[in-house]
Amino acid sequence: MRTRAQYREGLSKMNKNLYFNGGMIDRLDPLQEGALNVMGLTFDAAWDPASKDLCTATSHITGETINRFNHIHQNAEDLHKKQDMTRFMVNKVGQCIQRCMGIDASNAIHAVSFEAQKSPKAKTAYHDNWLKWLERFQREDLVASCAQTDVKGERMKRPAEQDDPDMYVHVVEERSDGIVVRGCKVHISEASISDEILVVPNRALQKGEEAYALAFAVPSDYEGVKQIVHFHNYRKRDTYDRGIEYGYTDSYVIFDDCFIPWERVFLCGETQHGGMAALLFALFHRHSYSGCKPAMLDYVIGMGALAAEINGIEKTPHVREKLSKLIMTGELGYAAGYTASALSKPEVYMPGLGIVPYGPGSYIPNSIYANVGRCLTGEAVFHEQEILCDIAGGMPATFPYENDLTNPEIKNLLEKYLNRNPKIPIEEQIKFWMNFIDFGLSGSAPATLYGAYHGGGSPIMEQIAITSQYDMESKKDIVRAIAGMKPRSKKK
Amino acid sequence: MRTRAQYREGLSKMNKNLYFNGGMIDRLDPLQEGALNVMGLTFDAAWDPASKDLCTATSHITGETINRFNHIHQNAEDLHKKQDMTRFMVNKVGQCIQRCMGIDASNAIHAVSFEAQKSPKAKTAYHDNWLKWLERFQREDLVASCAQTDVKGERMKRPAEQDDPDMYVHVVEERSDGIVVRGCKVHISEASISDEILVVPNRALQKGEEAYALAFAVPSDYEGVKQIVHFHNYRKRDTYDRGIEYGYTDSYVIFDDCFIPWERVFLCGETQHGGMAALLFALFHRHSYSGCKPAMLDYVIGMGALAAEINGIEKTPHVREKLSKLIMTGELGYAAGYTASALSKPEVYMPGLGIVPYGPGSYIPNSIYANVGRCLTGEAVFHEQEILCDIAGGMPATFPYENDLTNPEIKNLLEKYLNRNPKIPIEEQIKFWMNFIDFGLSGSAPATLYGAYHGGGSPIMEQIAITSQYDMESKKDIVRAIAGMKPRSKKK
Amino acid sequence: MRTRAQYREGLSKMNKNLYFNGGMIDRLDPLQEGALNVMGLTFDAAWDPASKDLCTATSHITGETINRFNHIHQNAEDLHKKQDMTRFMVNKVGQCIQRCMGIDASNAIHAVSFEAQKSPKAKTAYHDNWLKWLERFQREDLVASCAQTDVKGERMKRPAEQDDPDMYVHVVEERSDGIVVRGCKVHISEASISDEILVVPNRALQKGEEAYALAFAVPSDYEGVKQIVHFHNYRKRDTYDRGIEYGYTDSYVIFDDCFIPWERVFLCGETQHGGMAALLFALFHRHSYSGCKPAMLDYVIGMGALAAEINGIEKTPHVREKLSKLIMTGELGYAAGYTASALSKPEVYMPGLGIVPYGPGSYIPNSIYANVGRCLTGEAVFHEQEILCDIAGGMPATFPYENDLTNPEIKNLLEKYLNRNPKIPIEEQIKFWMNFIDFGLSGSAPATLYGAYHGGGSPIMEQIAITSQYDMESKKDIVRAIAGMKPRSKKK
Amino acid sequence: MRTRAQYREGLSKMNKNLYFNGGMIDRLDPLQEGALNVMGLTFDAAWDPASKDLCTATSHITGETINRFNHIHQNAEDLHKKQDMTRFMVNKVGQCIQRCMGIDASNAIHAVSFEAQKSPKAKTAYHDNWLKWLERFQREDLVASCAQTDVKGERMKRPAEQDDPDMYVHVVEERSDGIVVRGCKVHISEASISDEILVVPNRALQKGEEAYALAFAVPSDYEGVKQIVHFHNYRKRDTYDRGIEYGYTDSYVIFDDCFIPWERVFLCGETQHGGMAALLFALFHRHSYSGCKPAMLDYVIGMGALAAEINGIEKTPHVREKLSKLIMTGELGYAAGYTASALSKPEVYMPGLGIVPYGPGSYIPNSIYANVGRCLTGEAVFHEQEILCDIAGGMPATFPYENDLTNPEIKNLLEKYLNRNPKIPIEEQIKFWMNFIDFGLSGSAPATLYGAYHGGGSPIMEQIAITSQYDMESKKDIVRAIAGMKPRSKKK
Repeated sequence: MRTRAQYREGLSKMNKNLYFNGGMIDRLDPLQEGALNVMGLTFDAAWDPASKDLCTATSHITGETINRFNHIHQNAEDLHKKQDMTRFMVNKVGQCIQRCMGIDASNAIHAVSFEAQKSPKAKTAYHDNWLKWLERFQREDLVASCAQTDVKGERMKRPAEQDDPDMYVHVVEERSDGIVVRGCKVHISEASISDEILVVPNRALQKGEEAYALAFAVPSDYEGVKQIVHFHNYRKRDTYDRGIEYGYTDSYVIFDDCFIPWERVFLCGETQHGGMAALLFALFHRHSYSGCKPAMLDYVIGMGALAAEINGIEKTPHVREKLSKLIMTGELGYAAGYTASALSKPEVYMPGLGIVPYGPGSYIPNSIYANVGRCLTGEAVFHEQEILCDIAGGMPATFPYENDLTNPEIKNLLEKYLNRNPKIPIEEQIKFWMNFIDFGLSGSAPATLYGAYHGGGSPIMEQIAITSQYDMESKKDIVRAIAGMKPRSKKK
Repeated sequence: MRTRAQYREGLSKMNKNLYFNGGMIDRLDPLQEGALNVMGLTFDAAWDPASKDLCTATSHITGETINRFNHIHQNAEDLHKKQDMTRFMVNKVGQCIQRCMGIDASNAIHAVSFEAQKSPKAKTAYHDNWLKWLERFQREDLVASCAQTDVKGERMKRPAEQDDPDMYVHVVEERSDGIVVRGCKVHISEASISDEILVVPNRALQKGEEAYALAFAVPSDYEGVKQIVHFHNYRKRDTYDRGIEYGYTDSYVIFDDCFIPWERVFLCGETQHGGMAALLFALFHRHSYSGCKPAMLDYVIGMGALAAEINGIEKTPHVREKLSKLIMTGELGYAAGYTASALSKPEVYMPGLGIVPYGPGSYIPNSIYANVGRCLTGEAVFHEQEILCDIAGGMPATFPYENDLTNPEIKNLLEKYLNRNPKIPIEEQIKFWMNFIDFGLSGSAPATLYGAYHGGGSPIMEQIAITSQYDMESKKDIVRAIAGMKPRSKKK
Repeated sequence: MRTRAQYREGLSKMNKNLYFNGGMIDRLDPLQEGALNVMGLTFDAAWDPASKDLCTATSHITGETINRFNHIHQNAEDLHKKQDMTRFMVNKVGQCIQRCMGIDASNAIHAVSFEAQKSPKAKTAYHDNWLKWLERFQREDLVASCAQTDVKGERMKRPAEQDDPDMYVHVVEERSDGIVVRGCKVHISEASISDEILVVPNRALQKGEEAYALAFAVPSDYEGVKQIVHFHNYRKRDTYDRGIEYGYTDSYVIFDDCFIPWERVFLCGETQHGGMAALLFALFHRHSYSGCKPAMLDYVIGMGALAAEINGIEKTPHVREKLSKLIMTGELGYAAGYTASALSKPEVYMPGLGIVPYGPGSYIPNSIYANVGRCLTGEAVFHEQEILCDIAGGMPATFPYENDLTNPEIKNLLEKYLNRNPKIPIEEQIKFWMNFIDFGLSGSAPATLYGAYHGGGSPIMEQIAITSQYDMESKKDIVRAIAGMKPRSKKK
Repeated sequence: MRTRAQYREGLSKMNKNLYFNGGMIDRLDPLQEGALNVMGLTFDAAWDPASKDLCTATSHITGETINRFNHIHQNAEDLHKKQDMTRFMVNKVGQCIQRCMGIDASNAIHAVSFEAQKSPKAKTAYHDNWLKWLERFQREDLVASCAQTDVKGERMKRPAEQDDPDMYVHVVEERSDGIVVRGCKVHISEASISDEILVVPNRALQKGEEAYALAFAVPSDYEGVKQIVHFHNYRKRDTYDRGIEYGYTDSYVIFDDCFIPWERVFLCGETQHGGMAALLFALFHRHSYSGCKPAMLDYVIGMGALAAEINGIEKTPHVREKLSKLIMTGELGYAAGYTASALSKPEVYMPGLGIVPYGPGSYIPNSIYANVGRCLTGEAVFHEQEILCDIAGGMPATFPYENDLTNPEIKNLLEKYLNRNPKIPIEEQIKFWMNFIDFGLSGSAPATLYGAYHGGGSPIMEQIAITSQYDMESKKDIVRAIAGMKPRSKKK
């Protein structure tokens, strides 16, 4: 396993392919520091005796101790631990811990490449390729981001129906030594601070869409890969230091006729498995949400409770009711993930076939519970901000600038008038509100909401997953039996 | 274990103390048949090879096979099974299975009497008394209802502050051979078809309220006990038979200076344990809701899906969205209960002390998860009816009377005009709508909603439980650490 | 104008065509009494000096004083008065006042027949026929119900696409002296206590659906008309008398090859005007909701406030919040109707044409405001019951039967234990809860909700009306101007 | 009336008392430009022939034509016009038009000073002073902001109970020539670009709080007044110009022992009128919301509709439903304001007295309707952002920076991959999304939400106003009459 320093050193050697606001930047550019600092926590935690057990695992291929973020789940316990590790890590920064993309994509490709390799028309030994990549991924303790979301062009048209065929990443040429791919993946979190990028399809695919049934890995500074980077950083502080400096980054990842050698290709043309790769990454990622969203709610609850305490309204019934709503969302989301872990199996739901075995035996969370949890917590995020706004009152919207607070001409006046709770030192109150502003009222705050709402699949995607996979006929049979109607379901 | 017939025979021998609409009725009065039929299912299931494993357990006191509804949970698995048994049984009738009151009260008193007996001022050997009662309860396979809800008089006054001290059941006299109690418990489900009534306090108690810290058992036809019974039955059918006849009953149970011998007293004067008895019964009962509410949602989902199918709108997006909401409520409720079972321990939350060991080792569900689940599913019931109303359209509100449907003069016309789906026989459609009306538009329907909303504790009670028991300080510390504030929590 | 007695006398002479639960009944059958009593109020109010001004109008065709329920709106003031009369009358009974169907259908047909008569292919002088009918309607002070809702068969198919062409009422034969119609209208409120039935189409119509573009009037006991009647009555009281006895009735109205002479035909074959008739009746009726729903909310608010008072929780913050929600719904609904009246014009929205003049100058409420009001108040009804349930607690769900309350053996005990507020006599409390049960927990209660939700058009119908009629392009232009985009709207 | 240029010239002459981020700035500092530009629109519109009628009025004191923003409402029509002017002006900028504070405070003080002057203990001729100030305000066409919100210190303590008596602005010394005031008003919109500041109390007051019953005016650069300014500006654009540059500013306005001569004092010590001033400013301001919130919803609707059009999902049912919700909120808010105007009177609700005449005859909007409208639209703002987020998808959260879009190396690639609708030029799409980001995802966006939620009174303040002023007893009487209970209300 690497240390935070080794991880940074690795990045420092990479080729320059990051575009930012008209120019180009290095991997260790100050703009990247916030994100690097967050990712660094995942290395620290694996060495820290207090969190080591939770944050490492034993590789099922090498038997060595690896960072749990690079692990393939071998049983329900692994999924429980992934959920708890995620909650634990997110609690350190109040937001996304950034490294779940890699674990979720790996687990999806692990199963999909295994099944696809069985296909008589398989273009290469997908799973063998994958295991080779995975072994290095685990051994070198790499960070991978996952590129799933295509730009999608006209939304009501399928990939092959688009006027411009590049609206979804696809193969434009097949060669003896590899494939050439073109297209653009957007909103790719941490691509600019990752070692590798795993690419999976964006949706269920059908006949005629073989070129889009594609999974592969590239180094994130690879030739033919251009990243246009977006930062979600926070205003620097001069005086009132944060407890931790953090930030986020995501990229448009453009594959500009990028050549991928066969040994890095894990799927190429099998539409059914392509759809399954899309579905499984989403499923593993929704399960990750069952760790991170409860943790973000821990943060929101703490924020609301502290705001109420400072405002001196902690005991009022309407605050209690609002805090209970936040707790409900967080803990129901956790319970959904817990149950999804406990009921995990090496099985998937296959449209038309129901639940069937899938993959080499690695564990897949229960889809219904992973989806109901993600949907609940994803839909709640704007309302959470409303609750914080309600409890906090208007103060954070017009809070003085940091240098006003230290301007000797007005410092005393401001501290006098900002004070709402004589039991809490005014400097603590100020730090609290500045943090509240970071979270809810900064330029990065709304993008965080968009991520929490759409990331891992918008609520409507979970609704579709839930209703299409749910055993509706057995529910109708319950009614039929009680109503005295004839049973119709063919299920046992 | 008894059979359904033996259970009925037992009731037939009881004294007459049931008041109904101006007169008195027997236990086997036709009005009671619906409820008796539902309770009968709990006896059938224990004998039925298909459900035996789920619906029986091994008594931890006698080692004998008993009905699981009379079992004390020995481990997390027992709580998982109780949840699943409840869902399974409720699926047979679409509504309350009626026998959870006994199991939930028993588990609460089991722990409370154990702790109270340690008290130096204990009036009698509470837990020894209890074990004796429990042994007979299990051996004779009795049905117990639980009387918790007091009339409460003026709501803003505590028990001892009321103008009329009888607004909460209390001891009015202590004798050498027992105690005399007075008061009235209301909404006592199944009291009129139960063998025994377990009585527990209604709320947390404080010094000066010793007379209200009271738990005991009486036969439900006991001298000094008067029941005023309310029925929730359905209109008899002449032609379109239901698949099952069911009904519900609840009682005002009045203790009119009723004498209770010491051997039936399990708590008498220990206010702290009195509050704990109230809390624990509620907690076990909220856990039961994690079985019954998902099952009722199975029913609602099936109802909505069938209504949509008959209306030919099963595939429309707004129906899909509505069904997904129902599924989310049900499965989040189930997941909460599942997690509450999995994290169960012989521990309780004690105000001021936090989580502490409690009772003789029997298992108690995690309170946070039991509460968030109950609150979610309790708050949802009116909205569920709205969804059904939306999907069904107006038809069930003005559906023809059964004898119009068989009146030869208009039968053909009605069948012609009622038909909405040529693929489903009109008689099936008719049976479906009549069942829909039973559930949503009969005279019993609104009372069912009130039960589902307030039963086991109104949503506001769960909100109070959640916020008072949640470790809010540790959440604040997460914020403090990130904000750069000083830690304040004393917790490790 | 007639009196209540004259109205009843008229009904007593009608032919028997009401089917009920296997047999037939007279117009003055005791089952009809509740509904007759409500309708009687509309006659009383027109004579009562206190309400005469509000409840009468001057006929624009005869200049005579008529009941306002039979009036054609001549200006915005008439619409304001119709809204206020409706609120005033509904406040007398807490529910539907029953006579708005006639006024709303009349106003729709008044405009539509005027336009349709201009059609070169008009089958008869529609508007002349109409004026003749209207003159008698006003002069004889008749009660009309409106038959709009067809059974609709398969919901995803249009009228002419149905397997059975009778799923929407249509012309099956045209004769020199009139037409023969067939079909069935459902949920027709007050048809069994009305003098006349006005029939209008159910939806927008297109070419090929001429047979369905049909408006006419028949006496409600007409040959070929069969009514299957449904009652929404309340349990009789023996002791605790209500302040008013009320009830409701609706009918399946079957036109079994019913012959309609030309002079009673107001539209026959003009599809565009057929759609407009459907739309206009809905629009006038949604405007009526802006009177009745605020009035029903007055009732719900009063109910909630009294329940809170009896429970002694009137001042608690959560009750205040809930009451404020009820007030908001009612008064926003009223404001929407008020604004719809104030902005009324002799104009309609015509798909593709926008707002155009329509009809002979009678006033039509603004459609956007009428729709947003109806949608808000329609969607709210289940939540209103939830609020009442929350404030009331469980008591009404298991309230003792009336004859238990008078049974000398238990009367005193029950009165002792039911008492929650020493300042309010127990008999008043009992009457209150019995009334609460009538409204929220009786067998008629859920049907009332279905009516309030779907009546006048389900919420989704209003959403469609709102979005299809709203000037969306002008809103886009506001954005374009601020964004620096090019304007695109062609509107001025 | 002044022009935009004259207004700016006036500001240029003011004393420097604006603090910003550690230093001080001038009134015409570039940071102020956005806000100045918005305020400038209110001058332009009064001269523009197209809007002159709407945006000017005839002064009731001088008979001269004045900017309507400086007018005292003389009748319901004035209130209708104020609402419509507000909607019209806000449509030009998509957000707050900034000048309503002055009109709302003026109308409140106009009535309050009239009543207070009648007080035998009046310290000065409040209304005479006011009329003199008003005359100049109208003649010189000044901009006034209103300082109402005190810092409030410990929220559960009243003004006079605070440890630090300065937590609410109050009189610290009374002199023969005037008073000395101390305290701090926060969130004072446009104080830094206003000519004058009107100060009113923040809440209802009681005996012992005379020092806080205070209304006066000061020039905004007055001696003893310090402003700490906060800006809500948008990122400058290099290439993709906005249609209008706008911005917002608000100030902490500190009264640091500021001397106010008597002729500028309009209230000083009359607690009942102090509370009325607080209430009336809030009421007029909530009425202003009935113009601005519908206008902001016009903007949100246009934004959602354009996003849907660009995304090609304009016709999907879920988008239609969401747009209909937005329309409902906006138009119900408008209808509430319309009705509040139409039912306006020179009357107020006085606790304990009910509705009583107040002020010199100027018109006051109906309080119930003004409050229900503000509450509805205030509570909706976070949900509006959720709807926009749902329709837009993730694109705006990670949109490329402006200079990436013009970087020749990647411009073509970005334009290719950003394109979602071949019918709309890509530059238009880009401008749209950049505007969308300004509104929903910029650093100013969340503060705008906080303003829309809390400004003019948080939702809970409207709930309190609604429930405390509503005639609840008459609603109870409706129930009593129907239930057969005895009437209790003493109202006629």
